[in-house]
Amino acid sequence: MFQSFSETSSPEQGPPRLAALRAEMARDGLDGFIIPRADAHQGEYVADRDSRLAWLTGFTGSAGFCVALADMAGVFIDSRYRVQVRAQVADVFTPVDWPETSLGEWICDTLNGPGVVGFDPWLHTVSQIRELEESAGRVTLRRTDNLVDRIWEDQPPPPATSAFEQPVDLTGEPHESKITGLAQTLGAATCAVLTLPDSICWLLNIRGDDVPRTPFVHGFAILHASGEVTFFCDAAKLANLGDHLGPKMRVAPVDAFLPTLASIAGPVRIDPASCPVIVADTLAGHQTDIIEAQDPCALPKACKTEAELEGARAAHLRDGAAMARFLCWLDSQPVASLTEIDVVRQLESERAATNALRDISFDTISGAGPNGAIVHYRVTEKTNRKVAQGLLLVDSGGQYVDGTTDITRTIAIGEAGAEERRAFTLVLKGMIAISRLRWPKGLAGRDMDALARVALWDHGLDYGHGTGHGVGSYLSVHEGPQRLARTGTVPFMPGMILSNEPGFYKEGAFGIRIENLIIVERADALPGQTVPEMFTFETLTYVPIDTRLIDESLLTSAERDWLNTYHGDVLSRIGPLVEGDVALWLAKACTPI
Amino acid sequence: MFQSFSETSSPEQGPPRLAALRAEMARDGLDGFIIPRADAHQGEYVADRDSRLAWLTGFTGSAGFCVALADMAGVFIDSRYRVQVRAQVADVFTPVDWPETSLGEWICDTLNGPGVVGFDPWLHTVSQIRELEESAGRVTLRRTDNLVDRIWEDQPPPPATSAFEQPVDLTGEPHESKITGLAQTLGAATCAVLTLPDSICWLLNIRGDDVPRTPFVHGFAILHASGEVTFFCDAAKLANLGDHLGPKMRVAPVDAFLPTLASIAGPVRIDPASCPVIVADTLAGHQTDIIEAQDPCALPKACKTEAELEGARAAHLRDGAAMARFLCWLDSQPVASLTEIDVVRQLESERAATNALRDISFDTISGAGPNGAIVHYRVTEKTNRKVAQGLLLVDSGGQYVDGTTDITRTIAIGEAGAEERRAFTLVLKGMIAISRLRWPKGLAGRDMDALARVALWDHGLDYGHGTGHGVGSYLSVHEGPQRLARTGTVPFMPGMILSNEPGFYKEGAFGIRIENLIIVERADALPGQTVPEMFTFETLTYVPIDTRLIDESLLTSAERDWLNTYHGDVLSRIGPLVEGDVALWLAKACTPI
Repeated sequence: MFQSFSETSSPEQGPPRLAALRAEMARDGLDGFIIPRADAHQGEYVADRDSRLAWLTGFTGSAGFCVALADMAGVFIDSRYRVQVRAQVADVFTPVDWPETSLGEWICDTLNGPGVVGFDPWLHTVSQIRELEESAGRVTLRRTDNLVDRIWEDQPPPPATSAFEQPVDLTGEPHESKITGLAQTLGAATCAVLTLPDSICWLLNIRGDDVPRTPFVHGFAILHASGEVTFFCDAAKLANLGDHLGPKMRVAPVDAFLPTLASIAGPVRIDPASCPVIVADTLAGHQTDIIEAQDPCALPKACKTEAELEGARAAHLRDGAAMARFLCWLDSQPVASLTEIDVVRQLESERAATNALRDISFDTISGAGPNGAIVHYRVTEKTNRKVAQGLLLVDSGGQYVDGTTDITRTIAIGEAGAEERRAFTLVLKGMIAISRLRWPKGLAGRDMDALARVALWDHGLDYGHGTGHGVGSYLSVHEGPQRLARTGTVPFMPGMILSNEPGFYKEGAFGIRIENLIIVERADALPGQTVPEMFTFETLTYVPIDTRLIDESLLTSAERDWLNTYHGDVLSRIGPLVEGDVALWLAKACTPI
Repeated sequence: MFQSFSETSSPEQGPPRLAALRAEMARDGLDGFIIPRADAHQGEYVADRDSRLAWLTGFTGSAGFCVALADMAGVFIDSRYRVQVRAQVADVFTPVDWPETSLGEWICDTLNGPGVVGFDPWLHTVSQIRELEESAGRVTLRRTDNLVDRIWEDQPPPPATSAFEQPVDLTGEPHESKITGLAQTLGAATCAVLTLPDSICWLLNIRGDDVPRTPFVHGFAILHASGEVTFFCDAAKLANLGDHLGPKMRVAPVDAFLPTLASIAGPVRIDPASCPVIVADTLAGHQTDIIEAQDPCALPKACKTEAELEGARAAHLRDGAAMARFLCWLDSQPVASLTEIDVVRQLESERAATNALRDISFDTISGAGPNGAIVHYRVTEKTNRKVAQGLLLVDSGGQYVDGTTDITRTIAIGEAGAEERRAFTLVLKGMIAISRLRWPKGLAGRDMDALARVALWDHGLDYGHGTGHGVGSYLSVHEGPQRLARTGTVPFMPGMILSNEPGFYKEGAFGIRIENLIIVERADALPGQTVPEMFTFETLTYVPIDTRLIDESLLTSAERDWLNTYHGDVLSRIGPLVEGDVALWLAKACTPI
């Protein structure tokens, strides 16, 4: 079982740890110290060693940071975590609504005068520190070693798992060819610094196990314009790779990363949005010219190869069959006989039974009734709720060697009310609008996001998150640079995988989300088409959508046609993969409306 | 008759005038000189004196510029004018596709080495020159007096029409109150420089007749944080205003504008998007601090007062009745009996018959058959086409003292074909989608533009212009800062007037556009609404949409309901304003489908 349901937070440890931290601050003459949730790789998951925010404060959310001052310690959390933070931290910590309150502003207001605030330059990006310095007023920022590491006596060691090769028949392109291709795009730069593990893993066709849920190897890399790569990573972690990396790769210990940067001739390309500020400091300290530009791997990684897309299709059929088995089982249980945790266990066991599951792609969100309205809900023994009459929202995914899945279904438990059915149908209309969209080449997520919402808006409803995110190929389930959201400015290109997941949340009552993964593809020209080039989406996810929750009077005939065609495709693709009761259940669930 | 149909262009004069200009360039040691279409006020219409581009090149479009070099003279035109420019300029001028080719790039490539290019600093904005200097490479830009004015012997004098008061019962706010209110928003600036005539006319509640189609008084103004205004304008033009301007207004000659700027204590606020670069030069030359920010009048001007909205509603009913009389007349004419010019004359005469028409708000676009596909078509004696079987696109508007109108209808002449009806219905679906939209407060045009296009996209079609623009109150028919387009980043606010005008153009065949004006208003909350604040549009334009062109099978029931309700409203509002045949025609045109 990958998922655990324990409370990992220890609020009672917060006060003594904060006191110890403040003693270190005093020793160094610091008025404050910043503890981000991030590690040096800015990933969504961090290793135990890097869980400094949780260790210090008790807060276990996936984003946020703490600023410890002498008299106050703010824990900055976004709207997803406003409730959770209150349950997890002791009252020596003050929750701060972020980004409504900016870090610089809060520090200035709280110190109310000059002061010196320290931070670990490995854990903050160039952009973050630049923004902070602009808003810091009379407060001075000072680079320092990590004060939490000084006081964390039993801090775990860095992860040291074995990296393994991602076979070229799944990646579709040998890493030598990726490296040669990208090296030619560096222009005036002599090299590019890579610090994002998904970029490095993609570029080198390797995977690892350094953090949960995402098959990352942690390390840093320099991609030289000459077509060589220096990979800074513990050599022991790479032992199992054999000669995979090849002769154009130099492996060096992580400790050699900064000294190597110091010795390099520029200009050096870095991505200010993800590069630790210590990298820029090191380059600047040696008068090395810097070129700021997006991580060169970001866009090619997002545009999947045909092999990656084939893998994704296979992974989604396998995952879809597991979902069908799970949904059939769920429908056969009496109302109010299950808990949210039972649901998670059953679903993970169905995925595990495929014998192909490497990990779940994130902790399953199993939200019954009002818990469904908590967008990033993670069930624990303490919050575990009976799955009673109403709605159950299940958002989950698997990591398979050929692809990463992410699917949300909202299921009727017993008879659903009219309000729930209306909202479900409006969400479905948005999800269908995106699914069947054709659009002229060149548009980005922000040009389409409203199409998923207009049916909800028409009834005074909306949802507070983006409509979709990029998804990796046996990499992170949340991947840039494309987004299907008002903040998404990167034009969609063929091969990009996105989620399509509109929702609606009635606080204290129920939550609805319907999510498929989709691939951007070139659209065949229609008779009479005048737009030179159009794109559309191919659907990856084939799992029934609960038609018991549909108010048919709200669907147009085109929407009904889409749904019936979709369910016909589900039946023809998933039907052959299931048997017995599940096959019967699937046929019924796919009945046209 | 306001509109004329003559060819105002004299291509044969181009070569000698260009030769004379080049002699001036040589005398001054210049390798080039830039002749923009704009005047110092960056308006859509220019006075005869400022028609330098047309005088020199023959090109009469509403946007573009010429760069005369010693051996080549480029005329930069956007996609609307690619055909027109070829007909209007002699072959000593080379049309250049703009903005595909940037000005700086073209100069660098053509000079292919260092050089000095002159420009008139009154006619280019701060932003334009900044951008040009960034892309000019080894080319030096030099401020100079206007070389065209030197050689234009019979150049007309500046316009000297009489300004008149715009009554406060129509503006809804006395100018003293606008001035006091805005003065308080200037923050650290001691004053703001106003160079846009619509801003100045709005602020001072005055109108004038300095350019066609738009009731502008040309001048410059300084809004002081003290609540006083200095208005640089020929005093003779203001004689008819009596004591309207009041004691807090100083009037000074235009010649005093730069000397006054030179003597002012900063920081001075300017809008780099519209302010002539000579203003910034003058301030910089006296070490006066500059604050760059949007023209302070732009947003308050865009959010109409209740009096302005009442005026707009009245103007649109008056204009709607004139349109109904025109459309009734049009329907009674035999197929192929009219020309495009006949259509323009009849429509203008119907508007003039209201006895309230001050001007047309732009030259009527009357495009029959393939001419309908030329988005900014202006009919002349030479292009005048028979209105034969097919489609007729009529885009027109009136300037009334209480409001500015802008309406497009596409009308079936004889029996329409299936292709035309399908495209018309798809355009209508987009127009209805915007008309009936409700959206959460905070969204801008770019968040909605796709909603007007998605039905067209679904059939492989699109249109190459934005969906809508802001509209003034007896001011310019094209007004910022809001736009209903992918480039529209200003959140919509109550009282903003916009056009809603999706279209489709099949080159060489036909054009379709359907346009209503709409007002942003607060939406009443719906039962169960969870979005805190929502906006919607009130429709201003009440004129039948040609139901003979609708393919009913493509409409949803909600769209059909909207159309029938709209036609019911047209009948109840316009019906009482027309009589006899027109009333009969209107009732028939408004029959539910």
